[in-house]
Formats: sequence, C-alpha cells, structure tokens
Amino acid sequence: MKFKICSELAYKINAETTFIFNIQAVNSATQLILQESLTTNVAGLKLEEFTSGLRQARFLRVHIENAGPFTINYTAIVEMNLTPVNVHALHPEIELEKVDDDVIPYLFPSRYCQSDKLYNFAEKEFGHIKNTYEQVSAICNWIYKNVNYVSGSTNASSSAFDIITQREGVCRDFAHLGIAFCRALSIPARYFAGYAYKLKPQDFHACFEAHIGGKWMFFDATKMVPSHSLIKIAHGYDAADTSFASIYGDANPLYVKVSCESLTPDVFDAHEKSGTFKGLSYG
Amino acid sequence: MKFKICSELAYKINAETTFIFNIQAVNSATQLILQESLTTNVAGLKLEEFTSGLRQARFLRVHIENAGPFTINYTAIVEMNLTPVNVHALHPEIELEKVDDDVIPYLFPSRYCQSDKLYNFAEKEFGHIKNTYEQVSAICNWIYKNVNYVSGSTNASSSAFDIITQREGVCRDFAHLGIAFCRALSIPARYFAGYAYKLKPQDFHACFEAHIGGKWMFFDATKMVPSHSLIKIAHGYDAADTSFASIYGDANPLYVKVSCESLTPDVFDAHEKSGTFKGLSYG
Amino acid sequence: MKFKICSELAYKINAETTFIFNIQAVNSATQLILQESLTTNVAGLKLEEFTSGLRQARFLRVHIENAGPFTINYTAIVEMNLTPVNVHALHPEIELEKVDDDVIPYLFPSRYCQSDKLYNFAEKEFGHIKNTYEQVSAICNWIYKNVNYVSGSTNASSSAFDIITQREGVCRDFAHLGIAFCRALSIPARYFAGYAYKLKPQDFHACFEAHIGGKWMFFDATKMVPSHSLIKIAHGYDAADTSFASIYGDANPLYVKVSCESLTPDVFDAHEKSGTFKGLSYG
Amino acid sequence: MKFKICSELAYKINAETTFIFNIQAVNSATQLILQESLTTNVAGLKLEEFTSGLRQARFLRVHIENAGPFTINYTAIVEMNLTPVNVHALHPEIELEKVDDDVIPYLFPSRYCQSDKLYNFAEKEFGHIKNTYEQVSAICNWIYKNVNYVSGSTNASSSAFDIITQREGVCRDFAHLGIAFCRALSIPARYFAGYAYKLKPQDFHACFEAHIGGKWMFFDATKMVPSHSLIKIAHGYDAADTSFASIYGDANPLYVKVSCESLTPDVFDAHEKSGTFKGLSYG
Repeated sequence: MKFKICSELAYKINAETTFIFNIQAVNSATQLILQESLTTNVAGLKLEEFTSGLRQARFLRVHIENAGPFTINYTAIVEMNLTPVNVHALHPEIELEKVDDDVIPYLFPSRYCQSDKLYNFAEKEFGHIKNTYEQVSAICNWIYKNVNYVSGSTNASSSAFDIITQREGVCRDFAHLGIAFCRALSIPARYFAGYAYKLKPQDFHACFEAHIGGKWMFFDATKMVPSHSLIKIAHGYDAADTSFASIYGDANPLYVKVSCESLTPDVFDAHEKSGTFKGLSYG
Repeated sequence: MKFKICSELAYKINAETTFIFNIQAVNSATQLILQESLTTNVAGLKLEEFTSGLRQARFLRVHIENAGPFTINYTAIVEMNLTPVNVHALHPEIELEKVDDDVIPYLFPSRYCQSDKLYNFAEKEFGHIKNTYEQVSAICNWIYKNVNYVSGSTNASSSAFDIITQREGVCRDFAHLGIAFCRALSIPARYFAGYAYKLKPQDFHACFEAHIGGKWMFFDATKMVPSHSLIKIAHGYDAADTSFASIYGDANPLYVKVSCESLTPDVFDAHEKSGTFKGLSYG
Repeated sequence: MKFKICSELAYKINAETTFIFNIQAVNSATQLILQESLTTNVAGLKLEEFTSGLRQARFLRVHIENAGPFTINYTAIVEMNLTPVNVHALHPEIELEKVDDDVIPYLFPSRYCQSDKLYNFAEKEFGHIKNTYEQVSAICNWIYKNVNYVSGSTNASSSAFDIITQREGVCRDFAHLGIAFCRALSIPARYFAGYAYKLKPQDFHACFEAHIGGKWMFFDATKMVPSHSLIKIAHGYDAADTSFASIYGDANPLYVKVSCESLTPDVFDAHEKSGTFKGLSYG
Repeated sequence: MKFKICSELAYKINAETTFIFNIQAVNSATQLILQESLTTNVAGLKLEEFTSGLRQARFLRVHIENAGPFTINYTAIVEMNLTPVNVHALHPEIELEKVDDDVIPYLFPSRYCQSDKLYNFAEKEFGHIKNTYEQVSAICNWIYKNVNYVSGSTNASSSAFDIITQREGVCRDFAHLGIAFCRALSIPARYFAGYAYKLKPQDFHACFEAHIGGKWMFFDATKMVPSHSLIKIAHGYDAADTSFASIYGDANPLYVKVSCESLTPDVFDAHEKSGTFKGLSYG
C-alpha cells in the first residue's frame, strides 16, 4: 500500500531556539520512502538530519537565530511492504539470554514507563499467561477495557504510573502503559510514533512494539485504526525521546496539522479477516 | 595513577535467571585496563560481554539455568590518564546547534531524572548564571548544601522529583538530581557509575557528567571523594540503564563487596591544590 | 467596613445529585452578617445548612432529584470588625503543650498538604528563624518569590508536594504550600476560603491561617489583595473539606460568578500603612 | 467478651518534646472499659486527655521538658458488646441527602486516601454493584486478592495512590485503599485503629468503617483476625489523624510492644458461623 503523509508545525519564535524534530518517516525495507520534501518559511535555514545510536529515528535539528514566525512542512509518499507474521509460530517464551544486545535497553524503566513500580500489578494481572504474544495481547485488551480514551485528560507530565490509576488518557498514555507492563514482565518493549491512516481526528499516533520470538511485534492498545495503516516515524524508550518536537530556547507552538491518505485502494486486511491470526512487524 | 578495583556479587538463584551486570571498568585512552579477570563459582558459565549503542558501558549477560548459590568476582588494574581541563577556557554557553548527534538524547527526561517537571525550579535557582560550567558547579553546591546524605533514606524507586523535596538521599540520588537540573536548563547530562578510591564505606559510586564546550565534564555533588579517584564503569541516562545488576528471573541478592585501592603514591591533586581551577573529563 | 458579596453557581443536572456547597460567609463577632439570601431556580428545594464539628464552615446540602438546569445564588451584606493584632506582642514560640485541643488536628498532614514529606525542606529553609510569626511571614515571602501565579497551571489533583517543585499554581496552591510548610515546622495551620475585595479577576480566594501565640493569624502568600479585604467562608484542613461545591451524583458545572464590593469608603489600612507592623486574625 | 489490652511505647528524648498519643481504647456502650491504667517512667508528668471534635478518639498529650528515656504503659480491661447487624436489612443504597452532618467529612479525600484520583478505577471495578454493603465487601475482597501483605514494604509516606499500583503493603495500607475506594464511590468511610486479638505478630491493627444504611459498618480487608476481635482506639480520616504517636520535638522511638488477650472463652462467632451473613458496627 502507498500512503501520502503530511505534517505542518508552526511556532512563534521569541528568541534564539533549537528544535529537534521527529516527523520524518523511517526509510527501510518494509517502509520505502518513494518521495519526500521538507520546507520551511525561513530562507537559508540549515535542516540537519541525524539518527541517534542504533535507532531508526531520523531526528531533524533546526536552529533559528531570530524572532518571528516559523513553519515547517513535511510531505512524503511511502510504500508499505509489511509481511504479516504468523504469531502462532513465534517462540512462546522470552529468551533474554538470546536477544540481541541492542534489545536489552528496552527492558529498563524510562521516564514515562516506570516498569519498576509495576511488577506486582503485572504479575497478578498477566503472570499466569504463558505465551508471550498472548500476554502482550492481554495487556492491550486490559488497557482498552480499563482506560478511557479522553482527549485532553492528560498532559506532557503524565506517565504510566499515573494512567494505571486514573484510567484515562490518549494514545501516548495507552502506549506508555503497554510498554511499562511488558517491561515489568521482562518483555522488551519500545514506543512507536507514527502517522496513521483513518485516525480521527488526524494527528500523530502512538503505539508500541514488544520483542517476541526475535521480532519487534506491533501493538496498538487504542484499537483506533485498522492494522496495516501506520507509517513509522520513530521508535524509542518512550515519548521522551520520540517527541515530534523538542524545543530548546524560547518559542510558542501555534498549531500542528497532520494528514495521512491512502494512495491505493484498501486491500484485503489479512490481519483481521483471515482465519489464521497474524501479527505485524515493522522490522 | 593506578588503581586495583574489585567487586564480588553474590546471589541465591531460585529458578532460571538472566543477569545483566554492569561492573567492568571502561577501557579507553584515559582509563587503560592493564589487567582484569572475571570469575564465578559456577563451572562452564557463558559470560557474554556487549556494549549498548554508542555507550562505553560493557554490559555482561549471564544466564543461569539452575537453582543454587551464584557468585561473580571482578578484579582489574586500571591506569588513569585524566588530563585536567581548564574550565575557564570552555565555551561559556550551551550550543545545542553544534553538539554531536549522540549528545542530544542526554537532553531528554529519563526514569529517575524528570527534568520536564523542573523547568521553573531550575530557572529560578540557576537561570541567572550565564557561564555553563559555573551553572553546573552551582547545581552541585546547591545539592550538597540542601540534600542530606543519609544511607538507607531512599530506595530503588526514588527519583530526582522525590529527592528535590525530601532533601535526603545517597550518591545515586545526588547524581539524578544534578542530571535533572542540567537537562531542565538544556544542558546535556548523563549518569556516571564507577569505583571510587577513598569512598567510605566502600561501595559503587554514582556521579554525573555534563556536556560543556564540547566535552563531557565530570561532577560529583556528594563531594565524598577526592577528584581523580574515580574509575568509570559506565555512563547512561540514569541508574535505570547503568545499574550494576539487573535481574530477570528469580534470584535474591545476598551481598555486594566493592573495593578500590591505589597502587601508586597519592599524587599532587592538580584539581584541588593549584591556583587555576581545573575540571576533569573522562572523554 | 461593609461588603456586599455574591456568588452564582450553575450546573446541568443529568441525574439525581447531592451537592455540598460551601459559599455562605461565616457569621461571627468579627464578621457580622447583616443580611443574606439564598435562592435557586428550582421550586421547593430543601436547602439544608449545617456545620461540621467545631468548624465555622456553614455547609449547605442540596439534593436534586431530576435532570435539568440548576442555579444557586447567594448574596450577603457583611460587616467586618477585624482588630489588628500587634504581632510583636505574640508569643514568639509554638507551645504545643498549651494549645487548645481543637487546634491539634491542624498539625496533621492532609490531602493537599503533605507536611510529612516536607520536614527537611522546611527545616533547611525556615528552621533558623526563631520567632514563629516571622517564620510564617518568611514562608509567605518564599512562596511569593518562588512560585509563579499562573491561571490554569494546576488542577483539582495538584497538591503542595507538586507545587513545591513545579513552582507554579493559583491561590489554592499557594495556600496549600503555606500550610504544608507550617505543619512541617509543627505550626498548626488551616485553609481559609473566602470572598476577596479587589481580586482580579473576581473569584473565590484561598489563603491560610497559622496558630501563633494562641491566635489564628491570617496569611496570604499570593499578595493579590489588600489585607482587610477578605470575607471568610470557611476554614478547614485544606481544599478537600472547604471546596465551594462537592458533587455527588451526575452533574456538569456550567459557570461560577463571584463578586465582592465595598459598601464603605476605603479606610486607612492600619496593617500596611502604620509604622508598627500589625497582623490580622479572624478569630 | 472481655479483653485485656496492653501497650508499651519507649523513646529516647533528646530535647523538649510534645507527644500526642492515641493508644487508649474508646469507652462506649459497645465497648465498655472496666478498668484501665496509664503509667510512665517519668515522675510528675501531666497526662492530658482530650478528644477532638466529634470523634471518639481519646488523644493524650504529654509534654516532656528534659532529655532522657521515656516509656509509657497503657493497660485496660474492656468488655465488648457488639451486636451483629443483619446486613441484608441495611438500606441498599447510599442516601447522602439523609446522612448525619458529621458523616459528610468522611466523603472528602484525605492525606493517605486520595479518592479524587480513583473515580474511574473504582467505577470500573465496583460501579456495577448496586448494593452498598456488597460493594464494600467486593472492595475488601479485591484488596485481599490483589494486594500482598508484606511487612516493611511501605513506609509512613505510602498512600492509597501508591498501594493501588505497587500492590503490597501492611494493614494501614489495606485500610487506606479501602477507604479511598469507598469515598471515590460516594460512600463515607473512615479509618479504624485498634487492638486486635489473635493478630500475629502482635501490633496495633488498622481497618476501616463504611457508612451504610445509617450505620458505620466495620470492614477488615486484611482478613488477618476473626471478626469480634477488635477493640477500637480511634477512628479518623486516615492514619494521619489516628497515629498511635505523633512526635513534636526531638525524640527517637525505641520500641513498641502491644498485646491483646481474651479473658473469656472464645464464643460462637455468629458473624462467621451462622447461616445469615451478619456484619458488625462499633457504633
């Protein structure tokens, strides 16, 4: 499937400011960027792309010297080649002694995913489930059932530890709680930020990936969009290192516009319609 | 200077367990390992060393199948070649637009360093100081003056957000608060775990590094040991990814023994005794 | 001085609801109600006034059976007869062994005033001040200087423990922090809810009282209104038991209108203009 | 049934200290004190008993001028005359519009019972249960099943908001969580501190009371002791105002010894053995 994704972020710059943006789609075998463009309203601006460590995220650093309005536009056409994964064929257990070294850090607690405080809770709710994929599916079902999706109910400080009790939040909070539960059960898990087709209202979306049987399997506890409809921007520990914009200096956000359209007819959704339950991995 | 460092960690294994240890000294130009050994009481155990991403930490993965006692011993002789840095010559301001890409992640909040909640506090206390090195020095002085070092006053869940109000903690908490303050002021900062000569009682020590003028400068808000007396094990976001032992499975810690001896006569401490104030960087 | 105070609270009742309102002025020797009225838009409603324990608060219980709009109006004319207290003549120390029994509970931590977490902080900041009135004045000055008054920066869950680090809040938060500091220093303190003349924008106001030398002395860390301009609605442990409206059932708040006018010319403000510093006590 | 209860509390006084003790049994129709004594090791000490507001708690204020050892002993013989309550005959719903005025404050959140953060959680877990007594019983069963009783797992700062996620605690934490859930569901609830027969190890015990059908019904989510075996010391908002000892000054606790013996043969326990389920109320 092909998607056209766009985002436009506008700011009022009050004084010298450095932005770290995280809005470009990952370019990989499963997610091929056919075409993309990045424009701003400020002439001669240096847009410095870089990746951090082993992660696929394409950070974009922009330094603005002077006060004034600032708008950045990103547009891309992306071809998705996700192959459904037969989840029944995944190794049923976590084998930490075998996972790749770069997976290990996703076991540790992070700013918004305080897994170290969730051991007992996770063990009591999900400890009896022996198959790892089923365990993470149960986590998603639990979140979907127990946490209300309420726009504006949380803020930038809200974390898994808050959500688990307050029981309301947005996609970012759903993802944080899913990740925290996984890590509390020794399942490596990471945050997934992306564009989402059919998300209403249109916005950036947040989901998560859990490392099962050697693969990073995709999960979305919000169940707001069909599977096969996400385009990955980045994965990371949590929203702290995958935020679409980090601002260092003095600038006020004005607005964010996001869109995601399908350029191909809706195909048969193997994941949801076939008899054999299949999962997704963005690799 | 040469140091001999040792650590011994003992556990009661109840069932299959994977350990991620973080006890070996970094091997680098400024910290040269002359000799080292790693032994356990369990015959035929695979000790798998790896580093994570761009970090210098030498993680050690050990998988133990069967119940029983488990002890791991690490010994090394390390030669330190730290060159004092003239802090007056450091660039006085943070220049985020110029820092290396791998420095950026140390601006983000992490599990134990919730810098996103400390903006106002940090700005009010330290915002008026214009020189970055002086700002971080002021942070250390503030922590030293305002937080009581009290063994046992905190636990594995305690974070900078707790310490800033409760005003007591141990070296780990002092480091977390220092890091959180730095990041709240847009100064990249990372956790430093190490062995420390003359630390009483002997234990692993925690400090932090702040990125100033293109260098990772060393800071210790506890002021418990002379400078030039630390041997780095790892740096990371915070204690979450530099813990000396992470346990996945079922095992009880029994004891931790740490020692650090000097093998050369105490040399003149340029940092503290010279007229020109000098800082340290582990590179 | 005479004041005319008014409040109007409007709700959309969705299903059977019980309200506990806390909007009527205290009637006492220092605050004499000359005239007052209470009206609603629902005919035949029982308005049940009661006080709780030894407190002066006049709770109002209203039970509404049916869905529909609900508005309650309160108007009163109040004569204030506060006598300034010479704070230099107050006993300089807390004498817990002598305070009345009903003062003791105001030493305990409460929902929004977690004084048990603030011992070290309070001791370090204010422990050196020996005179209790000066100590509480220093607390107010510290809050005024270190906490930004920012409308909308906090919510109904925010407490002293949050504010002390986040350093922004509204009058309710300023009062909570003042109370928490006092109790951490063994000074009995209680929340003061009232109407305030010259408050902009017009709203309910929150301050606090500290028990010094046998009197409940008035303090306002926001410094937003002149002294002598408050009309007390209630005092209590904190906002939890002095909320202007507690809703049990299913109702949505629509709006709150508050006003407070002076019916006498502005008199000489002895507190602020005289050479001798004087305090206030509402008794 | 008759019980003999004793407690001995010992302290090292470093400087002038005021204690507020809460160790004496309530004297009431259902709990008749036949005999009691209070002794200390300090000659000529004034032991000042008082009650606070409408509560039955018998606070004891003791002021000690000089440094030295201090021990206080309390012994009493108490006759319990609790009449089992047929819980099926209790009014099935909360009728806030009818409860006595002094019950209302037990609806508000308090230091350790942040019911204002538990609305969604409580509604999702217990909202479907229509009968109030059954609802509170379900709360106790949930706590008993989901929270591990682990000595030393919590401290004086731990609250219902912590316990609900960390899922371990002691009797005090079980009571706080029970109270917080009740209040979140608009059921008035209060903390119950007491002596408990057959509690192992012997210590003060904490339970809670919920206001149902006009009565304060007794609940113990720990299920550690048989019903009919508690002697009430106090009820209050939570542990903050029913602590067995509050210390204002400079003193170190040395030890606490508590005992509770039955002076009559164990009688038939109507509550647990009869066909008709019966509850208890201490009045």
